[in-house]
Amino acid sequence: MKELVIGIDIGGTFTKFGIVDSEGNIYAEGSTPTDPFEYVHDYLAALCSEIKKQESTIKEPFKIIGVGIGAPNGNFHKGTIENAANLRWKGIIPFADLFKKYYNVPVKLTNDANAAALGEMVYGNARGMRDFIMITLGTGLGSGLVVNGDLVYGHDGFAGEIGHVNVKKNGRKCGCGNRGCLETYVSAPGIKRTVFELMADDHLGSHLVNYSFAELTSETIYEAAKMNDPLALKAFDITAQILGAKLADSVAHTSPQAIFLFGGLAKSGSYILEPTQKYMEESLMGAFKNKVQLLQSGLMDKNAAILGAGALIWKDSVA
Amino acid sequence: MKELVIGIDIGGTFTKFGIVDSEGNIYAEGSTPTDPFEYVHDYLAALCSEIKKQESTIKEPFKIIGVGIGAPNGNFHKGTIENAANLRWKGIIPFADLFKKYYNVPVKLTNDANAAALGEMVYGNARGMRDFIMITLGTGLGSGLVVNGDLVYGHDGFAGEIGHVNVKKNGRKCGCGNRGCLETYVSAPGIKRTVFELMADDHLGSHLVNYSFAELTSETIYEAAKMNDPLALKAFDITAQILGAKLADSVAHTSPQAIFLFGGLAKSGSYILEPTQKYMEESLMGAFKNKVQLLQSGLMDKNAAILGAGALIWKDSVA
Repeated sequence: MKELVIGIDIGGTFTKFGIVDSEGNIYAEGSTPTDPFEYVHDYLAALCSEIKKQESTIKEPFKIIGVGIGAPNGNFHKGTIENAANLRWKGIIPFADLFKKYYNVPVKLTNDANAAALGEMVYGNARGMRDFIMITLGTGLGSGLVVNGDLVYGHDGFAGEIGHVNVKKNGRKCGCGNRGCLETYVSAPGIKRTVFELMADDHLGSHLVNYSFAELTSETIYEAAKMNDPLALKAFDITAQILGAKLADSVAHTSPQAIFLFGGLAKSGSYILEPTQKYMEESLMGAFKNKVQLLQSGLMDKNAAILGAGALIWKDSVA
Repeated sequence: MKELVIGIDIGGTFTKFGIVDSEGNIYAEGSTPTDPFEYVHDYLAALCSEIKKQESTIKEPFKIIGVGIGAPNGNFHKGTIENAANLRWKGIIPFADLFKKYYNVPVKLTNDANAAALGEMVYGNARGMRDFIMITLGTGLGSGLVVNGDLVYGHDGFAGEIGHVNVKKNGRKCGCGNRGCLETYVSAPGIKRTVFELMADDHLGSHLVNYSFAELTSETIYEAAKMNDPLALKAFDITAQILGAKLADSVAHTSPQAIFLFGGLAKSGSYILEPTQKYMEESLMGAFKNKVQLLQSGLMDKNAAILGAGALIWKDSVA
C-alpha cells in the first residue's frame, strides 16, 4: 500500500495542504480559509473535513503515515503554535496534539521557513548538502539553518529567526514591536518602503511615482528594474546591501556551503542575487570569501511550503 | 591501564599541553615556546620531545589514546592550520597528519574557541546542555557554537567566527584586514581602545589618564571600574552595549540555552555580564526575551584550553 504524508502550510488568510509521497509527488491537494475561525477547534474540524474530502479522490490504496505542518511561530519541540501575530488564536496552541484527534499518526510542526529549508534539502537544490541556510523573502523574512544535515531548532524550538536581527538603530517599525529589524528592509514590503523613502529623499526619474503605497508590489518594482528604472534599481541595490551584510554575519556563525533565497522577492533573480553576493563578499572575513554560493531555491515554482511540511515526516523515515 | 589523552593549546608565543583523563584530571603538563621555530617540523620535534619528557613523570601505567589540539585557524575537517596570522608557518599546514608521525593515535584539531566550548560542555558549566554559545574574550574574540549537542564546524570547518562580524561601518582596523569587526571593540585590546577614544572625546575624570597605551591592560580597567572610575565604567558600558546587541543576533540564529563568557575580560564578572545581559535583552525579539542565560565560564581558573583540546577526543569516546 502506498505510504503518503499530509503536508500543511498554515498562513494567516489561507491554509493549503497536499497529500504527498516521499518523492514529492502530490496525490491530492486543497485549501481552506484560516481567518474566519475564531476557535482553533472549529478551524481544525473544517480543515480535516476538507483533507478527508481530497483523500477520497485518490484512486489507489494508500495509508497516511504522518502529518507535517508549517505554521507561523511553530515550536518543533512542543508541537505548539505560540503567540502568532497573524493568527486569531492567541496564547500557546497545542496544535500537533489537537491534530492527533483527527489523525493518530506522528504529527510534526515547525515554522514555515524551517519547513521550506527541509523542502529544499529533500526535494530542491540543497539535496546532498549538510550545511546551508534558507532565506524566505515574502511578506516577512524567514530563515532556516541546516547544520550537520539537521535543522537548527535551538533550545526553545524557535531558532533561525534572522528576520528580526537589528540592522538600524531606531530604524523602521517592525510587526514584532521592535524597530530596525532586517525584514523591515529586506522583504516584499521592505523594498516597497525603500522605494517610498527614495521618492521622498531624491529626484530619481521613475515610473513608480504613479503608484500609491497600497498599489505598489515587489513584482512591479522588479518589472521597473528590468526597464532600467533608476529608482527601482537603486531600491534593489539598497536591499541587497543590507541583506548581503547580514548574510555575512550568518556565514560567520554557521559557515554554510550555500544560501538559498526563496519567495516573491527571490523571483527577481539576478536583480537581487548578484548585488547581494557582491555585498556579502565585501563583508566576509578572508577565511570565508569566495566559498559560499548564493542561489535561488530549487522549489520556486513548486508548492515548496507543502512539500517542506511533508518533509518533516519524510526526512526521518527516509534517513 | 589508565587511558589518557594529550591536550595541546597552540598560541602564537607559547604552546601549553597537558596529559589528561576523561574526568579532567591532569597527570602531567608542560609548555614549549612556539615563536622561535621557523619550520613547523622543528617545532613539532621540540614539542613532542617535551611531551615525552613529561610523560615519563607519570607514575602509574597508562596508554595515550588520542591527541586533541586547539590552534588558531584550526580546520576540524582537515586537521590543518590555515593561514594563521599569529603563527610563523604560512599557508596550509597539515598539522594533525604531521603529528601522527610522533603519536599514531587519533589526532583531532580545531580552533581555540571551539576547544573551549568543548571543555565547557565536558567539564564546565555547560554539562548537560545541548545548545549553547561560548565566547572567549582575550586578545581577540573567539566563539564556539554548540547545536543539538554538537559543535558547529560548518561546511569548511571554520564556523563560529563572530569576532569578525561587522559592528561599525568603517570602524576600527582589525588584524584580519577588515574594519569595524566585533573584536576591535569587544576584547582586552578592544576595551583599551575604547578607554583611549573616551579620553580623546570627553572630560571624564579618571585615574586611567596616567597610563600609556602600551601600559594599560583590561585588568587595570577592571580595577578602576571597581573603584567607580567613571571612564572605566563607561568603557565597560560601551563594550557591553556592542556585545549585547551582537549576542542578540547570535540568539536569533541558534537560540541557545546559555551563552558563556570566558577569558581575561570575562574575569571582570558582573561589570561585563550584567550590562551585556541588559543590552542583549533590549535587542532580542519578543520570543527570545528572558530565556537565555549569560554566564561566566565554569573553567575560569582551570586550564580550559588544555581540557577543551583533550575533550576533542573524550567527547566521542565517552559518548
